[in-house]
Amino acid sequence: MSSDRIIYLPLGGAGEIGMNAYVYGYGKPGKERLILVDLGVTFPDMDSTPGVDLILPDIAWLAERRDRLEAIFITHAHEDHVGAVGHFWERLGAPIYARAFTAHIARLKMEDHGHSAQTVKTVQPWPYMVEAGPFKVGFVPISHSIPESSGLAIDTPQGRLVHTGDFKIDATPLVGEPFDTALWEEVSKPGVKALICDSTNVFSPHPGRSEATLGPQIEELVGQARGMVVTTTFASNVARVKTLAEAGVRAGRSVCLLGRAMRRMIEASVKTGVLEDFPSTISPEEAAQLPRENLMLIVTGSQGERRAASAQLARGKYNGMVMKEGDLFLFSSKTIPGNERGVISIMNQFSEQGVDVVDDSSGTYHVSGHANRPDIEVMHRLTNPGVVIPMHGEHRHLREHVKLAETLGRKGALAVNGMMLDLSGDEAQVAEYVDTGRTYVDGTVQIGALDGIVRDRIRMALNGHVTVTVILDEDDEMLGEPWCDIMGLPETGRGNASFVEALEEDLSQFIGRAGDKTLTDDDKLEDGLRRVARQTAMNEIGKKPEVTVVISRLA
Amino acid sequence: MSSDRIIYLPLGGAGEIGMNAYVYGYGKPGKERLILVDLGVTFPDMDSTPGVDLILPDIAWLAERRDRLEAIFITHAHEDHVGAVGHFWERLGAPIYARAFTAHIARLKMEDHGHSAQTVKTVQPWPYMVEAGPFKVGFVPISHSIPESSGLAIDTPQGRLVHTGDFKIDATPLVGEPFDTALWEEVSKPGVKALICDSTNVFSPHPGRSEATLGPQIEELVGQARGMVVTTTFASNVARVKTLAEAGVRAGRSVCLLGRAMRRMIEASVKTGVLEDFPSTISPEEAAQLPRENLMLIVTGSQGERRAASAQLARGKYNGMVMKEGDLFLFSSKTIPGNERGVISIMNQFSEQGVDVVDDSSGTYHVSGHANRPDIEVMHRLTNPGVVIPMHGEHRHLREHVKLAETLGRKGALAVNGMMLDLSGDEAQVAEYVDTGRTYVDGTVQIGALDGIVRDRIRMALNGHVTVTVILDEDDEMLGEPWCDIMGLPETGRGNASFVEALEEDLSQFIGRAGDKTLTDDDKLEDGLRRVARQTAMNEIGKKPEVTVVISRLA
Repeated sequence: MSSDRIIYLPLGGAGEIGMNAYVYGYGKPGKERLILVDLGVTFPDMDSTPGVDLILPDIAWLAERRDRLEAIFITHAHEDHVGAVGHFWERLGAPIYARAFTAHIARLKMEDHGHSAQTVKTVQPWPYMVEAGPFKVGFVPISHSIPESSGLAIDTPQGRLVHTGDFKIDATPLVGEPFDTALWEEVSKPGVKALICDSTNVFSPHPGRSEATLGPQIEELVGQARGMVVTTTFASNVARVKTLAEAGVRAGRSVCLLGRAMRRMIEASVKTGVLEDFPSTISPEEAAQLPRENLMLIVTGSQGERRAASAQLARGKYNGMVMKEGDLFLFSSKTIPGNERGVISIMNQFSEQGVDVVDDSSGTYHVSGHANRPDIEVMHRLTNPGVVIPMHGEHRHLREHVKLAETLGRKGALAVNGMMLDLSGDEAQVAEYVDTGRTYVDGTVQIGALDGIVRDRIRMALNGHVTVTVILDEDDEMLGEPWCDIMGLPETGRGNASFVEALEEDLSQFIGRAGDKTLTDDDKLEDGLRRVARQTAMNEIGKKPEVTVVISRLA
Repeated sequence: MSSDRIIYLPLGGAGEIGMNAYVYGYGKPGKERLILVDLGVTFPDMDSTPGVDLILPDIAWLAERRDRLEAIFITHAHEDHVGAVGHFWERLGAPIYARAFTAHIARLKMEDHGHSAQTVKTVQPWPYMVEAGPFKVGFVPISHSIPESSGLAIDTPQGRLVHTGDFKIDATPLVGEPFDTALWEEVSKPGVKALICDSTNVFSPHPGRSEATLGPQIEELVGQARGMVVTTTFASNVARVKTLAEAGVRAGRSVCLLGRAMRRMIEASVKTGVLEDFPSTISPEEAAQLPRENLMLIVTGSQGERRAASAQLARGKYNGMVMKEGDLFLFSSKTIPGNERGVISIMNQFSEQGVDVVDDSSGTYHVSGHANRPDIEVMHRLTNPGVVIPMHGEHRHLREHVKLAETLGRKGALAVNGMMLDLSGDEAQVAEYVDTGRTYVDGTVQIGALDGIVRDRIRMALNGHVTVTVILDEDDEMLGEPWCDIMGLPETGRGNASFVEALEEDLSQFIGRAGDKTLTDDDKLEDGLRRVARQTAMNEIGKKPEVTVVISRLA
């Protein structure tokens, strides 16, 4: 088959929530011209990625085909959609298109990595469309939890695709464009070949609530508070920051923003004109002069991040501010799975300070930025696509979303990262499987997820580490005794005897027994020393540590 | 003051959910005769306790006063209440009292540690009371999620204390005694000086539902399933296992129990007579012969534990059983905060196998074993204590529970681990602060939480490890060059150059520059080498690793 085809290939975001990166292509098989939608990051955790700073998708497939890449489109400015542009731009080298607010954030990221900000082009929204090889791409405003979020209308010679980006259906989102049903009807009118659709909240059965429902409830809560009120949400959730600030002002309080990300995001919003009428705020220095019952702080750290303002307030102080008995702390946010321990730890620290903590467990002070199941159904109905391809979800979300599409009488196709679909026919068909994975930003270096580096760190964390040093002379005779150093292991083992001494004695005996074949062969000797060290450790302390063996030969 | 007093001292469980251990004392200050209520464990996690096998309370205070310890009372057989009896019995040496089922489990634990099972005495429930020095202690049946749970009536010469243990208010718990309001009225009639009360669910605003509400809903779910049904819950939740098994049988399926803990717990329940009419089950071998639509498995691993049956089924197979497209997996359990990642990972693996997963998000297939806020209020009302002392909760739960007591017009006292209260007067007063903490079971060794061992492991996980080896001759001259080995760190750094070579070159230069004062002083030399290695690493890879320096001197 050598006729032109449309392909869809997720490199990230399909099979996980995070590091979104979706490739579309059009042309003859193997020669398609390509575009990339979003280029985001995801975040490490101690369980599986200790010491890692940031996780990026593996874009090797695309980088090898950079001559075919026409453009990169960023749907909105969340880190999981835009966070990797600076890290990867050198390897891709295509122009980046986004709407003004998103472009502003993308440019900051490009500059952070020493790239030209001019590579990022600001695009007007629909009906304007960017031409990129065989594609025409329009940014269709859609409601989400950050300004100027857009779905993409992606026109190919074989018809239109709709890529929703992240979205919810909110007629009164307060910041950013309301969801415009007529607009989406218009976009869908020519027929939609495939809907590539956000799946995050497919398991949430009730229609989503509007951002506008929160203000009065937050105002009431703040109005009843006796001491200082501190609230947190995602810094990028500009609408929420505005909702919180307005509620605070209506409750008669002065508002102070704390945390670099919070101030940077609000500044970006004001500068790009997406945030109007934000209440005037005061500086931390001014805040320090006010009676605490007249004060509301809006701070970073809704996920319990150790260095953010909320965690620092929980531990003591931040920017000169200190929490006191009778203060109120409000999480206007949902805890992302995996962050529970950090958030709960902060809650308990506040409790020790006598601070009342209110979280989202009542469902009163937070609404999600993603479409719940009934709202996903609305999107299916509006676009009425030939096939629904779920994205932005773990496997369980994608699978449930396919089932939902089929329940509603449409075709659905489940594609996870690395699964290339051919969208040309009536059915979405698997065209190819592509190697994908994760790249770690580790300090200043990029490392592969399968390099074994992080695996070794996890093993050291679980098993501890022993260094074994042996010196051999010219005649392969041991000089002195084997020497052991331990890290992350107990000093004494069975019967309260010295663990290091037990190791050294067993290693010494091993060398004493070892023949020339072992003593003259570094690999054999190293293997033997490691085996003995691990066995002795097992006997003495019930663990098998990681072992570094250093053999020095005096020549 | 030298008159007799009542003291209360939590060594574990007050300020956390887990490792319960509560000391009560009566007598002259500093000479009180003591009893211990519960002796449990808590579980490690990768974030804060990598490599640790189990966490125990630090019982040093009590061990130093073992001559004053009259007895240990265990309220019920959950690990966080009974799990540490084997580990600590040698250091405490007092008789252990429990009801039959709990005693059976406690004896298994004693035998695991080579102690005599006869130290555990089986006690009849209320109105029988055990005499222990100045105390008389009665086991008052109370509903919870494991058989024969009991609150304790603790009589002192100055009046009665009530220690609830874990409880909920359930008139139809299916296994174990129903909550008996009249019984608790009778126990409370003489007046209750202090109520030491479970706080776990103080933030749950609705009255708890009965175990009996679950059966019909689970039966309906199982009845609609087309393939095999697999369900999981805590093995110790014997009532739930029975609810699940009965629902399966009513839905026309044969039931098979999988997982060592599950079988062991049911056997213990049958043997001690607390479990009647448990449906007959089939073996894994028999199950393998049946059509899958006639089969229901009840398996271990509701918290996503890597080695349990559910995780093994998710990864492939367990005991010859394999999940298939169209099967159903039911979590009849709540995910404990911190375990989300593991549970979600299993859900996604099942999704990849085409298995439908149902969890507790709808609130239909699980009820908690702990009293919700309105049920805690019922307990306050029934016992009408002089003071409420919340236990079994994180700080936020204890604090909220004190506030609840005060709202209801009673006194409340917040005591966290290590805070000794004097309960003799009308007010509970802080008598003393005692050092408490955590002891880790690490392999076969017990280590202190503050020993720095686990801290070093966490640092290696975050920063990686470098071994630096240097050999000096008799004249303090370097023999050869410094030698570096890395673990958990990238091979190449800046500009793709070898990281190890960069380290070795900088270390070599450092030694070349070092004067005799440094070269002759092991500590100085080690500090210098470590500093240089960390600085070079920072330059090359953007991380400061942990460094082991081995200096060998040829004498």
